[in-house]
Amino acid sequence: MSQIDFWFSIGSTYSYLSVMRIGEVEDTYGVSFNWRPFNVRHVMIEQNNIPFKDKPIKTSYMWRDIERRADRYGLKPQIPAPYPLPGLVLANLVAQVGAEKGWAKDYVRETYRRWFEKGEPAGEEPNLSASLRDIGHDPEQILQTAQSERIENALAEATQEAMHLGVFGAPSFVVGGEVFWGDDRLDDAVDWALGRRRI
Amino acid sequence: MSQIDFWFSIGSTYSYLSVMRIGEVEDTYGVSFNWRPFNVRHVMIEQNNIPFKDKPIKTSYMWRDIERRADRYGLKPQIPAPYPLPGLVLANLVAQVGAEKGWAKDYVRETYRRWFEKGEPAGEEPNLSASLRDIGHDPEQILQTAQSERIENALAEATQEAMHLGVFGAPSFVVGGEVFWGDDRLDDAVDWALGRRRI
Repeated sequence: MSQIDFWFSIGSTYSYLSVMRIGEVEDTYGVSFNWRPFNVRHVMIEQNNIPFKDKPIKTSYMWRDIERRADRYGLKPQIPAPYPLPGLVLANLVAQVGAEKGWAKDYVRETYRRWFEKGEPAGEEPNLSASLRDIGHDPEQILQTAQSERIENALAEATQEAMHLGVFGAPSFVVGGEVFWGDDRLDDAVDWALGRRRI
Repeated sequence: MSQIDFWFSIGSTYSYLSVMRIGEVEDTYGVSFNWRPFNVRHVMIEQNNIPFKDKPIKTSYMWRDIERRADRYGLKPQIPAPYPLPGLVLANLVAQVGAEKGWAKDYVRETYRRWFEKGEPAGEEPNLSASLRDIGHDPEQILQTAQSERIENALAEATQEAMHLGVFGAPSFVVGGEVFWGDDRLDDAVDWALGRRRI
């Protein structure tokens, strides 16, 4: 089965669209996604790529665009969701634990659902513990592991790896050495994985 | 027939994709586009929205993304095209004359074709005169009109009108009060024009 690396960062708004529809994309096209958390804020600060801060018109458009796109996908977010996320780093440290243990997908879906559909910011309470509990894990234990030096190093290394691949924003899809950035390139990434490329 | 305002600015790279495929979109979906030039550089500087300058990774991605997307549309650009365009303002002043006279579409297609497929920067020679000549106009006369105070004012007013509508980048498609930004939202704009919206 064709595999696509899904580089995500909880905190990215457009990633809500990808996170919520990737399961259906897998079923429809017979591809699979490898969930890879990274710290997009670190990358964007390092690359001086600040898309929304101090840009009220563009930010306002972003929310309306997400709302319209969500509707196409049958999603019902409460727009705007709390943004930016103070707990971005912790949210992705938990995702890093999940990536190692095999439950990143479940956690990320649940934390995004609470963030976008219930207005609970990801990476802080009650979202953190409730999301972990809902997917069958002990919040206290996971949160302790997430804040260990080993996991912090693992997330930092993943972030370096993402940058090395040419990833500069989230969500990104990497397949066959090609980077596809944005929920609106998910279908292009799937086409590439399936060999429907021409160049 | 449903009409969509196509706010373009010669100088925008992704607009190449829209400019070259809008004719086919019109034929396929029975919508029409009203070609409206504006000065996107003015808007972006005013809104502190500088997407590519000093961002080599993102810029490199942009060219690869355009190359892949162009291939999907059957286009064969020479990537990267000269960028940014020193003659951006003059290119769009000529487009403003064309918008008033009804030949904006022909001129913009031809000037983009030369820019992206022959490596001749738009807004300067030989692109300017050759594009005008190819569509049956006298370059000397049009270039004189384009640099008149009346046309300069008309482009400035169009730029203000675009900002008033919420346009912050190019290409943008405006239909029924909704702004759709980017070549990758052209299909969403068409859906909206045809009443296939749900929200």
